[in-house]
Amino acid sequence: MSNFTYNKVTPELVEQFEAIAPGKVITGDSINPDYAKDEMPIYGTGAPEVLIEATSTEAVSSIVKLCYEHSIPVVPRGAGTGLTGAGVAHQGGVMIDMTKMNRILEYDMENFVVRVQPGVLLNDLAEDAQKRGLLYAPDPGEKFATLGGNVATNAGGMRAVKYGATRDYVRAMTVVLPTGEVVKLGATVSKTSTGYSLINMLIGSEGTLGIITELTLKLLAKPAADISLIIPYENLEECIATVPLFFLNHLQPQALEFMEREIVLSSERYLGRSIFPQEHDGVEIGAYLLVTFDGDSAEALESVVEKAAEVVLEAGAIDVLIADTPAKKKDAWAARSSFLEAIEAETKLLDECDVVVPVNQIAKYLTYVNGVGEKYDFAVKSFGHAGDGNLHIYTCSNDMEEDEFKRQVDEFMWDIYRKAQEVGGLLSGEHGIGYGKMTYLSELSGPVSMRLMEGIKEVFDPKMIMNPGKVCYPLEAK
Amino acid sequence: MSNFTYNKVTPELVEQFEAIAPGKVITGDSINPDYAKDEMPIYGTGAPEVLIEATSTEAVSSIVKLCYEHSIPVVPRGAGTGLTGAGVAHQGGVMIDMTKMNRILEYDMENFVVRVQPGVLLNDLAEDAQKRGLLYAPDPGEKFATLGGNVATNAGGMRAVKYGATRDYVRAMTVVLPTGEVVKLGATVSKTSTGYSLINMLIGSEGTLGIITELTLKLLAKPAADISLIIPYENLEECIATVPLFFLNHLQPQALEFMEREIVLSSERYLGRSIFPQEHDGVEIGAYLLVTFDGDSAEALESVVEKAAEVVLEAGAIDVLIADTPAKKKDAWAARSSFLEAIEAETKLLDECDVVVPVNQIAKYLTYVNGVGEKYDFAVKSFGHAGDGNLHIYTCSNDMEEDEFKRQVDEFMWDIYRKAQEVGGLLSGEHGIGYGKMTYLSELSGPVSMRLMEGIKEVFDPKMIMNPGKVCYPLEAK
Repeated sequence: MSNFTYNKVTPELVEQFEAIAPGKVITGDSINPDYAKDEMPIYGTGAPEVLIEATSTEAVSSIVKLCYEHSIPVVPRGAGTGLTGAGVAHQGGVMIDMTKMNRILEYDMENFVVRVQPGVLLNDLAEDAQKRGLLYAPDPGEKFATLGGNVATNAGGMRAVKYGATRDYVRAMTVVLPTGEVVKLGATVSKTSTGYSLINMLIGSEGTLGIITELTLKLLAKPAADISLIIPYENLEECIATVPLFFLNHLQPQALEFMEREIVLSSERYLGRSIFPQEHDGVEIGAYLLVTFDGDSAEALESVVEKAAEVVLEAGAIDVLIADTPAKKKDAWAARSSFLEAIEAETKLLDECDVVVPVNQIAKYLTYVNGVGEKYDFAVKSFGHAGDGNLHIYTCSNDMEEDEFKRQVDEFMWDIYRKAQEVGGLLSGEHGIGYGKMTYLSELSGPVSMRLMEGIKEVFDPKMIMNPGKVCYPLEAK
Repeated sequence: MSNFTYNKVTPELVEQFEAIAPGKVITGDSINPDYAKDEMPIYGTGAPEVLIEATSTEAVSSIVKLCYEHSIPVVPRGAGTGLTGAGVAHQGGVMIDMTKMNRILEYDMENFVVRVQPGVLLNDLAEDAQKRGLLYAPDPGEKFATLGGNVATNAGGMRAVKYGATRDYVRAMTVVLPTGEVVKLGATVSKTSTGYSLINMLIGSEGTLGIITELTLKLLAKPAADISLIIPYENLEECIATVPLFFLNHLQPQALEFMEREIVLSSERYLGRSIFPQEHDGVEIGAYLLVTFDGDSAEALESVVEKAAEVVLEAGAIDVLIADTPAKKKDAWAARSSFLEAIEAETKLLDECDVVVPVNQIAKYLTYVNGVGEKYDFAVKSFGHAGDGNLHIYTCSNDMEEDEFKRQVDEFMWDIYRKAQEVGGLLSGEHGIGYGKMTYLSELSGPVSMRLMEGIKEVFDPKMIMNPGKVCYPLEAK
């Protein structure tokens, strides 16, 4: 095993990059400092030595080949909206900015797929598909992430409960490997058993196994109608206890989110208006479900809503508010979409975990987390995807000093990650491991799984140049 | 890289196996010759030196550890219904028979999963789930395969068009690695981004990366109603040209199969009765679609059937026959299910390919295949999953000599595999690579993908003992 020493980018190499990508190479202090971090700067910052704007598969391949030859770290970068430090050049080297490869190349209406460049924003594809009567089903909270980044983290989102995560919508991809070689994986087909599933290895590999330069994504016919419900409860336990009842009653929500009172209040302060009810007949609301159903017609949804209302009211819901106009739906979901920004606006330092637990363990797990949280000086705010067990638990520093905050948070995180595993869950539902969660992954996955992951990393990347120090990394290199 | 020499099983080792699995060890001529082949004996036969019945994860782990230590090949074996030679001990060694680990362990109705041992037959889980109002969605043609085998090949089946392949229903698994170490992969959650997706590497790896000893599988609520249609056409081209229209018209069939006249005749000879119409108003039927729709109620399906009938009749269908009673549905699908047996009954030697091509390329591709087939002495019979582009193309020897048959078939297969790739398809839709299709995989995937697969194989299996010589295999070992 090599010892993975990296070289610095020399002026000669910069010239060679410039020859490959004329006018697209930026160096040193001319690089915008935004490229030195993602949305979770607590996981450390680091500027690349060189920033290169990608224009084609061929250009990316040529750049990576040079980096491979000269043992220079390469970090692929999307919109920088990640939450784990995966897109940050902690070790310097070359950052390849994929955001300008942002063309929707071709809709194939007979096979229900779309071919896109990886820098297309989720929001842009979602809106464009909708205009054509199509649905790109994955719906991660951050709409201004790139699709390449979505695939690299296997982003999940609101509709995963019904439609699955990004992984389920990737039919094919073009990838530049760490050696600079180009491979095409997958095809425009919905099933295959053609050797080991390399495409599934790339999905969720967070830019450590290769750079995605083209994607073929599955589309669905757009549902004819949808309707959202806001369902208030007196407390979180009753709220979460309702979740399995949707499935047991054959109701298939498109989205099923929960939120605690405090985070809704934060969000309403942030947005400057009140959307969710805060009390009902003198009872203070403690938690909410936000549910969307979709279907073939508004009529078909009526009976679904009726049944759902019956089920939740019997299970202790205080009320059922129906958002059946575009404006009402937009309001309800605007509150949900602004949670992260709302939290950011009110706190100095932030850390988060996005564990995923079995749906029937959510209530028990959150009660545990809130109990543990009381031992610490930071505030704990939770929301998440009740339908699929993916919880977003934020620790907010208030006025704590950074060192003390980090010390307390680390202790808290170890506790709640171990508990998540104990109840049958996993470390990350959709944000990934990146840089910030490697220690947790290493301990929770155990030495055998880590050895396999590290081995796979070396097969793809013998010189360990591709997004080094992320997800998993052989000990010798640390 | 080692040179992968394997040792023979010694009497001392047999004693050690017997100590691990008392009464479950069979050697030499006492092994039933059925274990020396699968359903496609044309890919070669080979008896294991020792056959051991698996009883637990721990026993499998202990056996594999011994084999690893002594460099003895290990072949995991399900029901032996494979079609590529993947479950055959071409190199001798130890075969581990998983069929007696066949208990359905636990339904978890709050998380919609079932925990099973890998030897449970597909048919047994499907029926048991149905009794509980649940649907195990994957529906491969061979109902008496084991679930472990289904996962190992990522088996597809009839309902993949609507519900996806086996891969999409595997939540978690316990695996004995080639080293004998035991790992648990995945969890009872519907999304995760927790490091490289090792579980997706195991799915479809055909017993070359580890032995699955427990599975947690996703279930769905059973659809309240379903209905099947038999749709005759004058010729294959018109028949297949209809396929994209279902999707464009937002009809979502649960299953969408096509069949040519000749194979329907074979099947009716085999079953001894006629189910499909053979002519209509003096017009000879050349091809059929067999379609199933499912939904929330019989009423909801009525409008779907009405719309479907309108679409297909306008597109050239000769008639629409509705199978709306359990008996009629059973009859229609019995014909489809018996195709392979019907072909086997009428031919001495058989080879097959199960390419998958984009749905809008099926007609063009099959026309090409039938054209090429005319150059050869064997007969070509095709059927398949029109909804997902997965085609089963059988070459039937009639009275040809084996050597000549194999020679002609190999030429034919190279031709049609290359054409499948040219139209955007892949080598195997659901049967896998196994032993029979390694050369094709190697050429069609290209050297870079093969290097990655071979590297991954070595990471999991440094001594290359697990199902050696299947799927991919480093050159040094060949």
